[in-house]
Amino acid sequence: MAGNTFGQLFRMTTFGESHGPAIGVVLDGVPPNIELSEADIQAELDRRKPGQSSVTTPRKEEDKAEILSGLFEGKTTGAPLAILIRNTNQESKDYNHLKDIFRPGHADFTYTEKYGIRDYRGGGRSSGRETACRVAAGAVAKKILHSLGIRTVAYTKAVGTVQAQTIDLNAIEKNPVRTCDPVAAEKMIKLIEEAKAAGDSVGGIVEAVVQGCPAGLGDPVFDKLNARLAQALFSIATIKALEFGEGFGVSQMRGSENNDAFLQKNGTITTATNHAGGILGGISNGNDIILRVAVKPPSSISKRQTTVTAEGKDRELEVKGRHDPCLCPRIVPVIEAMINVTLLDCWLIQKSIQ
Amino acid sequence: MAGNTFGQLFRMTTFGESHGPAIGVVLDGVPPNIELSEADIQAELDRRKPGQSSVTTPRKEEDKAEILSGLFEGKTTGAPLAILIRNTNQESKDYNHLKDIFRPGHADFTYTEKYGIRDYRGGGRSSGRETACRVAAGAVAKKILHSLGIRTVAYTKAVGTVQAQTIDLNAIEKNPVRTCDPVAAEKMIKLIEEAKAAGDSVGGIVEAVVQGCPAGLGDPVFDKLNARLAQALFSIATIKALEFGEGFGVSQMRGSENNDAFLQKNGTITTATNHAGGILGGISNGNDIILRVAVKPPSSISKRQTTVTAEGKDRELEVKGRHDPCLCPRIVPVIEAMINVTLLDCWLIQKSIQ
Amino acid sequence: MAGNTFGQLFRMTTFGESHGPAIGVVLDGVPPNIELSEADIQAELDRRKPGQSSVTTPRKEEDKAEILSGLFEGKTTGAPLAILIRNTNQESKDYNHLKDIFRPGHADFTYTEKYGIRDYRGGGRSSGRETACRVAAGAVAKKILHSLGIRTVAYTKAVGTVQAQTIDLNAIEKNPVRTCDPVAAEKMIKLIEEAKAAGDSVGGIVEAVVQGCPAGLGDPVFDKLNARLAQALFSIATIKALEFGEGFGVSQMRGSENNDAFLQKNGTITTATNHAGGILGGISNGNDIILRVAVKPPSSISKRQTTVTAEGKDRELEVKGRHDPCLCPRIVPVIEAMINVTLLDCWLIQKSIQ
Amino acid sequence: MAGNTFGQLFRMTTFGESHGPAIGVVLDGVPPNIELSEADIQAELDRRKPGQSSVTTPRKEEDKAEILSGLFEGKTTGAPLAILIRNTNQESKDYNHLKDIFRPGHADFTYTEKYGIRDYRGGGRSSGRETACRVAAGAVAKKILHSLGIRTVAYTKAVGTVQAQTIDLNAIEKNPVRTCDPVAAEKMIKLIEEAKAAGDSVGGIVEAVVQGCPAGLGDPVFDKLNARLAQALFSIATIKALEFGEGFGVSQMRGSENNDAFLQKNGTITTATNHAGGILGGISNGNDIILRVAVKPPSSISKRQTTVTAEGKDRELEVKGRHDPCLCPRIVPVIEAMINVTLLDCWLIQKSIQ
Repeated sequence: MAGNTFGQLFRMTTFGESHGPAIGVVLDGVPPNIELSEADIQAELDRRKPGQSSVTTPRKEEDKAEILSGLFEGKTTGAPLAILIRNTNQESKDYNHLKDIFRPGHADFTYTEKYGIRDYRGGGRSSGRETACRVAAGAVAKKILHSLGIRTVAYTKAVGTVQAQTIDLNAIEKNPVRTCDPVAAEKMIKLIEEAKAAGDSVGGIVEAVVQGCPAGLGDPVFDKLNARLAQALFSIATIKALEFGEGFGVSQMRGSENNDAFLQKNGTITTATNHAGGILGGISNGNDIILRVAVKPPSSISKRQTTVTAEGKDRELEVKGRHDPCLCPRIVPVIEAMINVTLLDCWLIQKSIQ
Repeated sequence: MAGNTFGQLFRMTTFGESHGPAIGVVLDGVPPNIELSEADIQAELDRRKPGQSSVTTPRKEEDKAEILSGLFEGKTTGAPLAILIRNTNQESKDYNHLKDIFRPGHADFTYTEKYGIRDYRGGGRSSGRETACRVAAGAVAKKILHSLGIRTVAYTKAVGTVQAQTIDLNAIEKNPVRTCDPVAAEKMIKLIEEAKAAGDSVGGIVEAVVQGCPAGLGDPVFDKLNARLAQALFSIATIKALEFGEGFGVSQMRGSENNDAFLQKNGTITTATNHAGGILGGISNGNDIILRVAVKPPSSISKRQTTVTAEGKDRELEVKGRHDPCLCPRIVPVIEAMINVTLLDCWLIQKSIQ
Repeated sequence: MAGNTFGQLFRMTTFGESHGPAIGVVLDGVPPNIELSEADIQAELDRRKPGQSSVTTPRKEEDKAEILSGLFEGKTTGAPLAILIRNTNQESKDYNHLKDIFRPGHADFTYTEKYGIRDYRGGGRSSGRETACRVAAGAVAKKILHSLGIRTVAYTKAVGTVQAQTIDLNAIEKNPVRTCDPVAAEKMIKLIEEAKAAGDSVGGIVEAVVQGCPAGLGDPVFDKLNARLAQALFSIATIKALEFGEGFGVSQMRGSENNDAFLQKNGTITTATNHAGGILGGISNGNDIILRVAVKPPSSISKRQTTVTAEGKDRELEVKGRHDPCLCPRIVPVIEAMINVTLLDCWLIQKSIQ
Repeated sequence: MAGNTFGQLFRMTTFGESHGPAIGVVLDGVPPNIELSEADIQAELDRRKPGQSSVTTPRKEEDKAEILSGLFEGKTTGAPLAILIRNTNQESKDYNHLKDIFRPGHADFTYTEKYGIRDYRGGGRSSGRETACRVAAGAVAKKILHSLGIRTVAYTKAVGTVQAQTIDLNAIEKNPVRTCDPVAAEKMIKLIEEAKAAGDSVGGIVEAVVQGCPAGLGDPVFDKLNARLAQALFSIATIKALEFGEGFGVSQMRGSENNDAFLQKNGTITTATNHAGGILGGISNGNDIILRVAVKPPSSISKRQTTVTAEGKDRELEVKGRHDPCLCPRIVPVIEAMINVTLLDCWLIQKSIQ
């Protein structure tokens, strides 16, 4: 209820602030007897961690995962799996001058309005740092889904006006923007570096594909698979739009164009096209699930901005510090994680009625 | 869990199939001492009911609401409010020939895969008819929100390629497509009628604005206001995309353009622009909440389509019957309803910590 | 949250007041493809209905169940099953004189304090009549559990000071107090009739046994099987005490006496004794689950009592009407129902991790 | 769902095994702006920690609480409060010989049946050590409730056959058994020491009183205050029975005896007696809430017992180690904690409708 838990049978609860002692996640409902190690989690955290390249923040955070519970002799036990990540690189003093200022685009103002108090050190609970916990949780879900043949891949589809022209899933981890188009990658990097040099930031689009998802996941009517994925993805603060399959394109299509005709192929029923993006009536239909999100340009920019203090006094602001000029490269594993925890939860729910 | 309940403190549970004896909704957590009558609910149901004009289905369903509980001497009591709508116009025989056929774009196939059984009469549980229950629930939320000064208005922003050019909230209920642009309305009607004549259907875009929403609603991190609205809206089966504020536009914006500068106005803190669409860090900021959804063209078309039977045999299909050529006009009150139940729930949750 | 829903994967939501138009229940998460009919539900409702004998209220309520949804061609579909019971014997005028009076032992005062409003007709939402909905839900759970070999039987173990001396499960439905001891039955009936003649009422003890429950049900740590059964049973307003196995007796036992020694029997592991009542560490161990509850004497008595009005004025009160002198006979099916819905829910949850 | 979370608006999620690296709790929904320190939590943990006296286990566990999040400049922020307790005194080798043995009275067998795997070190997740996390959570709830004038006190009412004859709340923390009767304390201590010397253990009864609880807490029908307290208390593994007010005594009472007559006193409405134990119709009525639980004799005894291995082989067992001969003294703060977290949750829920 209070907002820091996601999921029904597979549930993650995250905690921690950007500049407190630690962040972490408690995973409840982890199926027992799954082989798991800290290395499985670390591998995913490393994909999200800062300091990976010139197009991400140069901050150095080790983000080392420690499993505190739920694991015995290398296997999950059915008990909650708690994962702790100590904060090591907090420089809280950096934020003292922001104590009374509402940074544009950040949650400073809304947290203050909601709670009447705000941990102003680096965004506190509203910091993107919290998503490291989701990535840790997602690593556990990913391992289980892989054993079921379900695979989620996300990638940068556009940075600003530069759009990927090809989709090469093998290219993704080989370029620092994590785009599916190695040619566009160069232009994207250039665009990000230009924005950064100008003290500015840039948005983008991330697409995700789920392969191998069986038909039957998702629960009508309010827990439709797309509805639950939507909550999962919009819970990432920087995402402002989401579409499945043809997405906004359907608004200009006719029914006769948009309907995916059913047909039989090698003894199983499938569809001729996949305009729906793998979900019909809120339930997976066995096709690839395809979705896209819009990632806003990071709000922390060093360019001068105007704002007010908590007392309503005008102020000019230049956000110093080490910020991401574009979030796409590092948000890719977060998006995969949110999709994976949602899918595993739906899979467990479906298992209970089969 | 099982999917037919939405909300935390204000909870709606819907039930019923398109061609069963009745559909209905149980609303739990309705604050006590609210004046309410069946007329309040009927007014909203009438906005959604079929047969309103040439651009909606000609089916005649009375959709008469009966309040079964939770009301005493014209006031809510804090007990669950159950609202029943008897199905009166079901012609189940119409659907016998569809018994073994998977209609393209419908949930026939996925329900069969999920449950191993399917109520094939008019889509059964997956029918859009279920949304009448949401509209009934939304009417209760709307009444309470109005007393708090919170007002949600949705309207058709585009039908196919015809887009509204102006936003005149007073125009909406005066044209059958419920668009905010009385001039575009004529073109939209024409487009829908053309599609209908061609045995086809057409998609569109609906926009919604919430006025008067106080700052502080929404719960970080997973129950962000936009995340909960996203689940609410994607739980409407025909919605394929959603965006807040600038939406997909942010992907091409710079941080310096997209950030809304804070300023003081008449003693309160607000922002110079509203690119964020009224939500920052998942919490309402006091600005208008603005969102848009893409509504797919209805899947039921009389144009010939190819599909397969449950046994995988090829079939040609012409969906006869009385279907909506465009869902926008009737989905507008459904969207308002889902927004209103979500907002009221967030408002009650926020009340508990204030 | 709001309190009228019970369960996680198998969820029941009840609604309705004693003297409103109807009461009912929505069951979500009903497994699909279960054969079910209104007769299955009616059979259980008939065990709870008033007017069965001289030891129950002479009120005549037909309590006829109508299934509104979730059933198609005699089978469950996975969609919510809504069951409606119209109120037919309400004599609301009977209660006008109680409008401003707080009846001792009833929820009149606490509902007024909680909600600031009260439906005073026959107890409104707090009426025992609501439990008919649970019995209807329990009938569905019972049918499924029977197919799994799980069988719950409850019976009156004591009425006032008269205690059953033998446990004959076949005797239960053959005597009007539903006791397991046909000899004690006569004394119990006499005691109840005496209390009734004196304008008074009498309490009792009901015991329940679950046979055939597999090991492994219940979820540590807060959703222990006994913890969930405890919530289920204490949600029946007249139950004031609950014990499992040796119950309060353990307070006077040594560990060496109370521990159930494990042993092997016919190739399976079981225990020599069953002091624990079938649950160890919150998880069923394969033994019979055994529990007992204390049922308070009904608060509605015709004997003169003193009380106050809502304005605090002293009043004398004689509750006229047709009330149960002892609740045991009619509460037996309610207790079975609450146990069965809990067990089925735990069984579905366990299925998801197996 | 998965069982390790309790509460609705005020939610605690515990994690950790007896002999893993750490145990801990995440508290979500903590109201913001509450002054809090690790000392507040430590004070309660110290009441529960082992090694306090001759009647508890001599194990030395420091149980030092570290607050990892949710606190800023000495105040809660509305973000989840995570509390970590490192395990420092685990001697896992102690348990190697128990690897394949099912200890009588413990959850070894049922965890194995449920999960197909078991962390056999000291009971793993089923260890009473987990309750330290609840005490930490309860300390937070207690602080808030005190500021509202709500105070929970639990105490040992009986050890074996020795019963407290007086109720002196000031005596409780002055004797090592935490009984309310300083005279009975001596006899209780003697009884415990005798059992311990005999390699055995002894059960008891703990009573709890809540003073200052306002009328209106608890949510009909399934979330009745007593129903939620029942889940809370039976979630403590060693509790086998629970009663409110007259409890099992009601089974032998007449309605005319058991009903609490309403009367006016100093301008407020109250009752002449408190047989109900402070709860009517599942809602607090403003009287003291009174309940009693039966605490089983600890299952870990050094006396020789018979049992079987996982393979069903007979074994004799003497549980060595440092175990509590009676749980009452240390369970008192656990019971208070579970009551307090439940009450605070109900209080927050009630606040949302007032």
